[in-house]
Amino acid sequence: MFNLNVLSKKDIQSLLKMNDVIDVVESAYSQKASNRASIFDWVFNEFDPGVADMDIKSGWLKDEGIYGMKLVSWFSKNPEKNLPSIIGVVMVFDDKTGKPIGLVDGDYITGMRTGAAGAIGAKYMARKDSKTLLMVGTGHISKFEIAATLIALPNIEEVIIINPINAQVATDMAEKLKDVLRDEFDITREFEVKSIDNIEDAVRLSDIIITATPSRKPLIMKEWLKPGTHLSCIGSDMPGKEEIDPNIFKEARVVVDDLEQCKHIGEIEIPFNLGIIDNQSISGEIGDIINKKINGRMNDDEITVFDATGTALLDLVTARLAFSIAESKKVGTTVEL
Amino acid sequence: MFNLNVLSKKDIQSLLKMNDVIDVVESAYSQKASNRASIFDWVFNEFDPGVADMDIKSGWLKDEGIYGMKLVSWFSKNPEKNLPSIIGVVMVFDDKTGKPIGLVDGDYITGMRTGAAGAIGAKYMARKDSKTLLMVGTGHISKFEIAATLIALPNIEEVIIINPINAQVATDMAEKLKDVLRDEFDITREFEVKSIDNIEDAVRLSDIIITATPSRKPLIMKEWLKPGTHLSCIGSDMPGKEEIDPNIFKEARVVVDDLEQCKHIGEIEIPFNLGIIDNQSISGEIGDIINKKINGRMNDDEITVFDATGTALLDLVTARLAFSIAESKKVGTTVEL
Repeated sequence: MFNLNVLSKKDIQSLLKMNDVIDVVESAYSQKASNRASIFDWVFNEFDPGVADMDIKSGWLKDEGIYGMKLVSWFSKNPEKNLPSIIGVVMVFDDKTGKPIGLVDGDYITGMRTGAAGAIGAKYMARKDSKTLLMVGTGHISKFEIAATLIALPNIEEVIIINPINAQVATDMAEKLKDVLRDEFDITREFEVKSIDNIEDAVRLSDIIITATPSRKPLIMKEWLKPGTHLSCIGSDMPGKEEIDPNIFKEARVVVDDLEQCKHIGEIEIPFNLGIIDNQSISGEIGDIINKKINGRMNDDEITVFDATGTALLDLVTARLAFSIAESKKVGTTVEL
Repeated sequence: MFNLNVLSKKDIQSLLKMNDVIDVVESAYSQKASNRASIFDWVFNEFDPGVADMDIKSGWLKDEGIYGMKLVSWFSKNPEKNLPSIIGVVMVFDDKTGKPIGLVDGDYITGMRTGAAGAIGAKYMARKDSKTLLMVGTGHISKFEIAATLIALPNIEEVIIINPINAQVATDMAEKLKDVLRDEFDITREFEVKSIDNIEDAVRLSDIIITATPSRKPLIMKEWLKPGTHLSCIGSDMPGKEEIDPNIFKEARVVVDDLEQCKHIGEIEIPFNLGIIDNQSISGEIGDIINKKINGRMNDDEITVFDATGTALLDLVTARLAFSIAESKKVGTTVEL
């Protein structure tokens, strides 16, 4: 019999601060790149292709002494039933005994750690004088990307939002953004925000681009990019997904969160399949930069790309952080198992 | 935000009856064999080879409208810390929305559904006039195997228990067996019980043999078997595990719970690798017998073998049964997620 700590979405919303999540996600990347963490096999099932699926990501962080899993489902017709389309749970276990440490809603954790991931790519690979962030996509994850990037990069002065399909959604999001970032992430610093209808115009203005869409064709063409632009590609997390022109990879400096996973489901999948890049084209893992094994960028003019497909390690360290804070603040529910 | 039903080990011990579990496990086998259920990829990690590992089994039952997973860990040194070596959790989700149905301790579920599995093999494949059951192994799972077989096969008159390494453990178990079966499984019917030190002697007396040991070499030799003996092989659930003489497979009628999984981790793994059997040697799945697509045995003299490696489908239907009864009996704890 065990006591299991359960944290609801409401609980972790009150517990997790983005700057702390950025720290633990960096640490997870660092541990992975130095082989102190491992990712287990990915489980994926489509209930109805293109309509409903689920996946299980799992892994182990030796330094943290934890392992665990995240199960996330996507049922695209849920909103018609007044349910969220994404539902997830994260479970964390102790790696010395197998004792469950806790269970937590996986949706908010996913938002926080994915926001941190995109921002960490920009923090380590973008030009230090980057001023303009372009957020491509206005879904659930975009506010997390913007919040994390504004926190990780104090020099950002302007945020541009684009929805490649429905411009009005981007306009609405831009209007509310400052309130959302203040209310949900305590971000009160000055910055400009606007939406732009034309993606080419938006790309030409931007120093850092974060893509987080469900796209299956390139949204951003190579010839639109300013020299020195950084792209954090977040949206591609499944075979066939693609957000940027494969030709960008011909000359870009490319870093991944996990090479095998990215080749299978990430933004580099299609350029790999097209023969545009091979293993030698990948400079390393983001954790190698954090560990100072490689540089984030070699000069101010090169295009840099971070392909982030997301691993259970990010969920586990973020969940573990939430459990630690919850324990000290006496938040959450304990159930007997 | 969701409400999640949590059932502790104590809860499900009070809720689950073995005859009901046998019914739902048969139904899961039947659904699988007619492609109305699917097993997802298996995740396995060794923290310390031979000392500690964990695995995640998952799957989907379309007729039941559920999917889910079981994570089970084995930390062999836990008893030194006053913790059980096996710790597990099962989570069940609704396949129309992804909403979590519930979380339940996985240890007792595993015992019940694995007991049912061994008994179902005997029920469908053993000679109808089988009188003597040999239980090889005295671990956590053996009481479930014996209980389920006594319930599924009313003709069993005698239970023999053997521990191939420590005979005293078998003697102790035999002494307490009737009390345990009465207290934990409501079994009050008449039967003989004894332990035997010599495995060859025990095998020569038996009509039905259930093996549930962690053995990595054959414990039961072909020449010891009476004509018409049935074997349910439960223990082999990992590459390299083996409980019976590979030569038994040369002439036996062999049925599996899942062909690919059994070839990879089951009792048939080694005979396959040795070239003693191939795909054509396998008569089918246990669900094919339940579905009356194939016969359990062809005559009273042949040796029959059921290789049961265990699938998430069994855990999911058993957990679902527990949640249904819990709901009507108002048992369990509801937490907000």
